[in-house]
Amino acid sequence: MTTKHFLISCLLAITLFSVSCASTKQDGVKMVELKEPKRPAGQENVLHLAVDPIPTVRIGFIGVGNRGGAALRRYIHMEGVEIKAICDLKEERVKQGQSTIKGKNLPPADEYVGEETWKKVCERDDIDLIYICTDWLTHTPMAVYAMEQGKHVAIEVPAAVTVDECWQLVNTAEKTRKHCMMLENCCYDFFELTTLNMAQKGVLGELVHGEGAYIHDLRSQAKNPDSWRVKFYEEYTGNPYPTHGFGPICQAMNIHRGDKMEYLVSISSDQFGLSLFIKEQYGEGSPESQKNHALGDMNTTIIRTAKGKTIMVQHDVTSPRPYSRLHTISGTKGFAQKYPTPNIALDPDSHQFLPEDKLNDLLKEYEHPFIKEIGEKAKQVGGHGGMDFIMDYRLIHCLRNGLPLDMDVYDAAEWSCLVELTKISTTHGGVPVRIPDFTRGDWNKLQGLKFF
Amino acid sequence: MTTKHFLISCLLAITLFSVSCASTKQDGVKMVELKEPKRPAGQENVLHLAVDPIPTVRIGFIGVGNRGGAALRRYIHMEGVEIKAICDLKEERVKQGQSTIKGKNLPPADEYVGEETWKKVCERDDIDLIYICTDWLTHTPMAVYAMEQGKHVAIEVPAAVTVDECWQLVNTAEKTRKHCMMLENCCYDFFELTTLNMAQKGVLGELVHGEGAYIHDLRSQAKNPDSWRVKFYEEYTGNPYPTHGFGPICQAMNIHRGDKMEYLVSISSDQFGLSLFIKEQYGEGSPESQKNHALGDMNTTIIRTAKGKTIMVQHDVTSPRPYSRLHTISGTKGFAQKYPTPNIALDPDSHQFLPEDKLNDLLKEYEHPFIKEIGEKAKQVGGHGGMDFIMDYRLIHCLRNGLPLDMDVYDAAEWSCLVELTKISTTHGGVPVRIPDFTRGDWNKLQGLKFF
Repeated sequence: MTTKHFLISCLLAITLFSVSCASTKQDGVKMVELKEPKRPAGQENVLHLAVDPIPTVRIGFIGVGNRGGAALRRYIHMEGVEIKAICDLKEERVKQGQSTIKGKNLPPADEYVGEETWKKVCERDDIDLIYICTDWLTHTPMAVYAMEQGKHVAIEVPAAVTVDECWQLVNTAEKTRKHCMMLENCCYDFFELTTLNMAQKGVLGELVHGEGAYIHDLRSQAKNPDSWRVKFYEEYTGNPYPTHGFGPICQAMNIHRGDKMEYLVSISSDQFGLSLFIKEQYGEGSPESQKNHALGDMNTTIIRTAKGKTIMVQHDVTSPRPYSRLHTISGTKGFAQKYPTPNIALDPDSHQFLPEDKLNDLLKEYEHPFIKEIGEKAKQVGGHGGMDFIMDYRLIHCLRNGLPLDMDVYDAAEWSCLVELTKISTTHGGVPVRIPDFTRGDWNKLQGLKFF
Repeated sequence: MTTKHFLISCLLAITLFSVSCASTKQDGVKMVELKEPKRPAGQENVLHLAVDPIPTVRIGFIGVGNRGGAALRRYIHMEGVEIKAICDLKEERVKQGQSTIKGKNLPPADEYVGEETWKKVCERDDIDLIYICTDWLTHTPMAVYAMEQGKHVAIEVPAAVTVDECWQLVNTAEKTRKHCMMLENCCYDFFELTTLNMAQKGVLGELVHGEGAYIHDLRSQAKNPDSWRVKFYEEYTGNPYPTHGFGPICQAMNIHRGDKMEYLVSISSDQFGLSLFIKEQYGEGSPESQKNHALGDMNTTIIRTAKGKTIMVQHDVTSPRPYSRLHTISGTKGFAQKYPTPNIALDPDSHQFLPEDKLNDLLKEYEHPFIKEIGEKAKQVGGHGGMDFIMDYRLIHCLRNGLPLDMDVYDAAEWSCLVELTKISTTHGGVPVRIPDFTRGDWNKLQGLKFF
């Protein structure tokens, strides 16, 4: 995939020099910057892109393994959709998907098995939406192809693994005027939605700092010799999977809707946890334990925005820690954090977290409209406690009603670009790296995130 | 894959404000590096410095306001000390200190009031230890002068506010062979001591990542127009007060005792919280609200060590948040965090925190020897719940028995140097800054932190 590109970034030579008694203005500092492609003449942004209503959304699912299989089990409960096609490399997964559909007495989907069959799904003229749940490296190629074939796309996280792929998504969405939504389900989790609502209503004052993370002990995946995820860790270090913790923070902080990310710095520890796990699992002298994994256990990234706000993002999937996405938002009037337990503190009593009864009252008062609307059904259908179904519901609702989607292609690009940018920074001594403005100058045209 | 979009433009123009700044190459990247003074010929390190036992430690207290007054109220309960002198800019504070001493029926201390009288205290020949609790900017000048006069010194945090001051402390301690201990009381808090003990006994495996912070809503200090602390924020941004959260993490991670910090990156948000507070307090058009405060609300710093470990440090004293020092330590076999509530998770059940009863059992099992020895008395005497008295007790115990102190001058320098280094990084777009090796090559001579 990106080896060539990473080799090129390794050629970086950052030059610093000292000038006595000079200014300390940040404006005077330049940093690593990837070249940003100009927007082709005549092409416009897709902010608040709306298309004609699609009363019944006809869907093709590409990748029906772990995440795609779970998506099917949710979509059989969705009104206003038709599952037209299911596609996977493995026949047994397609068969299993088909039996999911059959179990709900829905019309069978067409089946596609094998390497290049996903293109056939994209090329059909009776499909509106391609829903992509494949491995990380195929997300962008498939999404781009699907949009080129006139389809809207929903892509599992991360939508892209390089900045070049992010630009491909943006350019293709702008050119084809198709929706390109990354399936960032954590934006629909209950505490995230409700604190977003609180932030938008000013309860926390002006937001100054946010923190998100993906801290999830996944060492046991190394027991599976075919894991493409663990394979990815062999060459990669940085934050390969930033979006779950990061997306909800960017939404709360109105990224590309009144503010934009300017630059990041990123530092990883070396690899200790996974290496030890593999040694203990397979034995000190085993071939498995001889394999090198570049991925540091803990990656920490700091981002600064144009409006002087900061975001801290972490990734650790190889240390013995309880799950956490942090989800910390800190404003001039209040503070919220989700992990290890949901807590909120509000001025003028912000030296203490709210006691349980007052916290519950507050969460009830600011319960997000999506939860009121579909929360109960979402909990019944399931999918990470309901958030997956709220996401699906919103995607289909907006498509059926010709509304802009909750998350656009710039979100997908902004949240996914950290995969490569954190690698560049962490493999170059924490050097600051400019974060591209994927809206190409239009980041301040919308004032605040709006759901339609 | 096309490479043209990835042509990396790199860049320079990091401008520094001191001629002592230079740049150095790290893995192909150059970073900001302050010039490190060579160790004078014949001078040796003070690792594990021990001096002749001092059966009765005669102390001069400089600065007996907030922290110094509290120290006096603890030292009247200490065995084996004589309070010989108390010194302050303000007479009423000296009088109050004297009445503290009188209240315990101890011999009165000599009184020193006014600007330069602290030098007289240092010059006495019947004092062993100078205990400095003045404002931040006078810590190093006083400590250096005291050591030059043959006294051991204990200094409130931070011991220094510039890297140059850090070197002054190190050089003077090495030259005079006097103890120079920073009064980092948080190293003696109960959870910190016990998790340090667990880390040293291998319960958490090899430590990979640590986090410390000083998150303490101190906005109300802006109500005092004479606050030197708020005054400091006018010109300064970065992390002005790093040591409380940082010290215990450095101890757990054996900094300069088998590992050393290599470089940091640091980013601050702009100032929002304090500015709003002052506006609300004094009114929009007031002279107070016209004053600029450079200090960003949230500063986040990431440090990487020679052994590939990472430390994250934060500072926020101007946002409405409950108090936190984070105190997070993450190893290959377990994880501990202190805030918002103490929690520990251990392999192989590390997907969950220990339930309360098991946590309490574990904390009891690994209760630090200092707590067993003096914990009960410390709680009675008080001082941040007892940690201050444990610190005092250990300082006096080691001096009386001719033992190396728990914290040495390199700790003081390493933990305090962040004041300036975070400022350099954060005011230069997060540029990586080399952290000096204050041991000048001797950081790997001790293997692990040892208390005597």
